[in-house]
Amino acid sequence: MKTVIIVAGGRGKRMGHNTPKQFLKLDGVPIIVRTILSFYNYDHQIKIILALPKDEIEKWETIKSKTDNIPPHIIVEGGAERFFSVKNALAHVGKGEIVAIHDGVRPFASAETIGRCFEKAEQSGAAIPVVTLTESIRYFENEDESVAVNREKYKIVQTPQVFKSDILIAAYKQPYATDFTDDASVVEKFGYPISSVAGNRENIKITTPMDMKISKIYLRL
Amino acid sequence: MKTVIIVAGGRGKRMGHNTPKQFLKLDGVPIIVRTILSFYNYDHQIKIILALPKDEIEKWETIKSKTDNIPPHIIVEGGAERFFSVKNALAHVGKGEIVAIHDGVRPFASAETIGRCFEKAEQSGAAIPVVTLTESIRYFENEDESVAVNREKYKIVQTPQVFKSDILIAAYKQPYATDFTDDASVVEKFGYPISSVAGNRENIKITTPMDMKISKIYLRL
Repeated sequence: MKTVIIVAGGRGKRMGHNTPKQFLKLDGVPIIVRTILSFYNYDHQIKIILALPKDEIEKWETIKSKTDNIPPHIIVEGGAERFFSVKNALAHVGKGEIVAIHDGVRPFASAETIGRCFEKAEQSGAAIPVVTLTESIRYFENEDESVAVNREKYKIVQTPQVFKSDILIAAYKQPYATDFTDDASVVEKFGYPISSVAGNRENIKITTPMDMKISKIYLRL
Repeated sequence: MKTVIIVAGGRGKRMGHNTPKQFLKLDGVPIIVRTILSFYNYDHQIKIILALPKDEIEKWETIKSKTDNIPPHIIVEGGAERFFSVKNALAHVGKGEIVAIHDGVRPFASAETIGRCFEKAEQSGAAIPVVTLTESIRYFENEDESVAVNREKYKIVQTPQVFKSDILIAAYKQPYATDFTDDASVVEKFGYPISSVAGNRENIKITTPMDMKISKIYLRL
């Protein structure tokens, strides 16, 4: 059984809006609805769990009442950190499921990317999508000292990050740590290796007004 | 005395065009002309050296004859690698200059970024502009094994990369090495530390059709 936990988090201060960024519209459709549909279109049978901050659940109910064709989903309350939102969502996940965790503001994960992640996780237990770095980077030991690094050794991490539920549930029993920057880092700290597959370049996390403009280009591709 | 070497390189295979990417137009103005103007507008007295592949010099002369207000500049022949193009350009650089080296397809370096690089290089001898990574990255030991890294320790490198000419000329006397991915890496291998200053986010290297579309957004900002 396939499940996706969609994590819709912060208020989007960088967006310069009061509307939580996942509720902003792209061509008339809220970003979060596009994200949900990307998984529903990949698999109509997928179980969808949406983690939302407590004070945004009412707003979401209003959006739902005004929007056609939002697939059925479970709503859970988000926590102070992504870790706790996922943990709350895991209460609705059983043994033997394959579970994707995905950012609510990533509406452009392709069906191919989602498929590759689920297939790889089914074999390896833990799979994430990555894309190559297109720019040169340097490593900073401190603010003043840096060295060139080989950018081919580094890749950009996207979501969905997909895991066998048994591994994921066990990993999320660890105490919270500040270096849990994504779900793979939680599972990795638990001692489980992470496989990677190709993501798709358009699968960006929308966090700034510029990202909104770039997203409008992606909608036209 | 301030100098800029503008390196206009490859044929832009990723662009899907036969026109070298630096000659593609953005709002009617060739990218390379916008790049030249960004330095001229920063300082009307700056010495501009343009390194172009031999078989594109004629095309450039045609563009020049049809375009008003291109600032005076020296043209040098590019080499097989960026290293050799810069080396050729350095024949026109004397002692005591401060020399910026800049990608021909980066038309959006702000005057502030250019100024910060020149000022820092005047103090430290070598300065490059950097911006923070907005995405999570992982380090790949090989294709199958990767680990999370702290993205705050890494920054994206841009140009102009600016140096005191004495250091730069000496560094470019080293034999060519394949790990010379930019000018800072040449100077660094020579044993000289590289300072960094803040770049500007829009200062992208235009290499793909998507970059052209994003550039059109930047023109409207």
